Amino acid sequence: MAQKPSIPKGTRDFGAVEMARRNYIFDTIRSVYRLYGFRQIETPAMENLSTLMGKYGEEGDKLLFKILNSGDFTRSVSTQLYEEASAPALAAKFCEKGLRYDLTVPFARYVVQHRDELQMPFKRYQIQPVWRADRPQKGRYREFYQCDADVVGSDSLLNEVELMQIVDEVFTRFGIRVAIKINNRKILTGIAEVIGAADKIVDITVAIDKLDKIGLDKVNEELAANGLSAEQIETLQPIIKLSGTNAEKLATMRQVLAASETGLKGCDEVAFVLEALGDGLNNEIELDLTLARGLNYYTGCIFEVKALDVEIGSITGGGRYDNLTGIFGMPGLSGVGISFGADRIYDVLNQLELYPADTQSSVQLLFINFGATEAAHCLALARQTRAAGIATEVFPDSTKMKKQMNYANAQQIPFVALVGESEIAEGVIALKNMVTGEQQKLTIEEAIALIKA
Amino acid sequence: MAQKPSIPKGTRDFGAVEMARRNYIFDTIRSVYRLYGFRQIETPAMENLSTLMGKYGEEGDKLLFKILNSGDFTRSVSTQLYEEASAPALAAKFCEKGLRYDLTVPFARYVVQHRDELQMPFKRYQIQPVWRADRPQKGRYREFYQCDADVVGSDSLLNEVELMQIVDEVFTRFGIRVAIKINNRKILTGIAEVIGAADKIVDITVAIDKLDKIGLDKVNEELAANGLSAEQIETLQPIIKLSGTNAEKLATMRQVLAASETGLKGCDEVAFVLEALGDGLNNEIELDLTLARGLNYYTGCIFEVKALDVEIGSITGGGRYDNLTGIFGMPGLSGVGISFGADRIYDVLNQLELYPADTQSSVQLLFINFGATEAAHCLALARQTRAAGIATEVFPDSTKMKKQMNYANAQQIPFVALVGESEIAEGVIALKNMVTGEQQKLTIEEAIALIKA
Repeated sequence: MAQKPSIPKGTRDFGAVEMARRNYIFDTIRSVYRLYGFRQIETPAMENLSTLMGKYGEEGDKLLFKILNSGDFTRSVSTQLYEEASAPALAAKFCEKGLRYDLTVPFARYVVQHRDELQMPFKRYQIQPVWRADRPQKGRYREFYQCDADVVGSDSLLNEVELMQIVDEVFTRFGIRVAIKINNRKILTGIAEVIGAADKIVDITVAIDKLDKIGLDKVNEELAANGLSAEQIETLQPIIKLSGTNAEKLATMRQVLAASETGLKGCDEVAFVLEALGDGLNNEIELDLTLARGLNYYTGCIFEVKALDVEIGSITGGGRYDNLTGIFGMPGLSGVGISFGADRIYDVLNQLELYPADTQSSVQLLFINFGATEAAHCLALARQTRAAGIATEVFPDSTKMKKQMNYANAQQIPFVALVGESEIAEGVIALKNMVTGEQQKLTIEEAIALIKA
Repeated sequence: MAQKPSIPKGTRDFGAVEMARRNYIFDTIRSVYRLYGFRQIETPAMENLSTLMGKYGEEGDKLLFKILNSGDFTRSVSTQLYEEASAPALAAKFCEKGLRYDLTVPFARYVVQHRDELQMPFKRYQIQPVWRADRPQKGRYREFYQCDADVVGSDSLLNEVELMQIVDEVFTRFGIRVAIKINNRKILTGIAEVIGAADKIVDITVAIDKLDKIGLDKVNEELAANGLSAEQIETLQPIIKLSGTNAEKLATMRQVLAASETGLKGCDEVAFVLEALGDGLNNEIELDLTLARGLNYYTGCIFEVKALDVEIGSITGGGRYDNLTGIFGMPGLSGVGISFGADRIYDVLNQLELYPADTQSSVQLLFINFGATEAAHCLALARQTRAAGIATEVFPDSTKMKKQMNYANAQQIPFVALVGESEIAEGVIALKNMVTGEQQKLTIEEAIALIKA
């Protein structure tokens, strides 16, 4: 009995329709990246585990897919060691390589490894799959694509400005209405400084984020439960109740953070970005102090994008980091980047039915096969339609007409050519429009003109 | 001391220039596949090892990259078993998944798994990396791309015809002159039948292939050394000395194979394909009996492509297989496919310098940064050039002019805009053509028109 095939859990096959949609997403993001002067790179799926381990926290190390060494991988592990050592320790002996977990660490490794060839600032984009041994669940996969753009070697805030323009342009092209949230790690540091509770900043942002849902009193209760003093909670009140325009919010924050040099610098940075953007975006950009994003990773502006018409969480995010390449021996290189979540964007586009009409079928014309002689004739005609840039199929088998028409319908092919004995004699084709049902006799040149119109 | 980063041997990073070239290759192949009605699919990098093992021979099993099970992978392996079992047996316990080794087996798995959703004939193309734990050497990598197209569910030879047209079209677009070799597995079976030596067919084709190099006498000596009788060698003479046009070769082969029904069928198949192609190809197609290609895999026409102006071996190959999906429980599904070798095509294009001029730089315009005020102005101008479809950069830092100009040169950006205080006052930009050195003052609209021209 032959084995019944399947694929590993958390992975997916993508058929023709899904691929057309995914390519639409990747092509859109890619073309905007290019418009802003970002250059594509690719890195190998496998990285040395020494490159990956310890970069994503203890939990991340566990989620790395490790690749068994080739040949006699057991050589360096005695039976005694096998009995005594833990699974992670044995894995470290059996495996030297792992699958990349994101595009950021490979990018940092790339920059350091190729530092002598690179022109700074280095603006790269990268669209490749990543792998995580996460527990699969709805919307979470073990293989998924990331679409990253980063600039390294420049600490100019103009980079942040352009990344926001890119975000705005991409979602405008998709037709997805979004809210762009911006914050700054230095503002969060400033808040921690002025209330003297650096270790509580995550709890504080989480609590503040619940204001709309649970109200001010409950937020304050939660802060108290997290160990903040009445005085600290009092200091936080203007921040919790922060509202108004971005300019009004910044003015309030400057007062609250007056004692923190770092906090004020964060306000300056956000103010610069917002001012440079002016009213040039199609989507709203909003200062949101509850935005925290991987605190130990970013050092300056941070951003996140939420779809307005679909409940789905963040669909894009990023920020500035000041020392990403330091772990690989190249300190002091500042960078800033964004990452589009292709899978969630896919879900949003599906839900809102925002794909352009021509995303479905790529084939425009099918020649029906009436037999060997007719097919040979059609093959020659197909050369002409293809030379004119029309994606064309000749049905390879002379099966029942009904089966061939079903094929055209299933593949959503808009035109079908029926070329039998009489059409060959007349030097024409019978062209059927599969949408209207209309059929007319045309020369091949006329048919080409009609299909291309 | 920070670790010095590197990548696993046999893998590669691709920088911006290499990516532009590789994309040119993939885009060209993809656009021709689409023109012929092939639809893209993608399958996961990881497949279950049960899908992959035993499909590539004993050697192939060893070359599979296996992925260590997550969590406590040692659970099912006692210390005693660890001591006693071989490395492959232990690998089978520690690993359930592996990286795909080619695109053909995942495709067969895909067809069987999704049989109920697919419309036959199913024409798919797939461009994805594959991984092999081969010993890395010049031109052989552990991660490389394959670009496959296959039709399954149709045994019509029109599919072979179209695949040859695709091959011809792709290499015509690349500007690479090639020889397309065609043969048929049934002809080889026929030869084995008429000389009564089915097990010697590989030795025979290898020996015949040396005719040009070593001459007829030495070929006959080699056949004798391989255990063929004088009578068998005598029967082979017309085949060894086969020459002339394809039609002449086929006529000779029909005589030699007169006693073999299978052999004659092979001749008929090749004759049909050659006749249907007629003189419609830009490149020569030639019946080559020494072409053997993975004998136990193919069952009908087989083909291979060689570059004429570069010594590099086969750069494309394929053929018909009658039972690829049988191993997954779906017998009787005939298919035919080709695979372009992207890495070797890359080498040929490099050697012959055949890349289109615009493959190098994607950025067309760089705004020099003279300071905060000027940069803010340039940012607004860049919005206009980008809206016009011109890939534009604004240098993010107001560093030395020389450094910024060096950047433009290194990135091969053809136009640089210099916008200082006086240009802002005049409402113009100074546009420098980096190739001619010419510089002129233009309105932004004039500059856009010039750059797009």
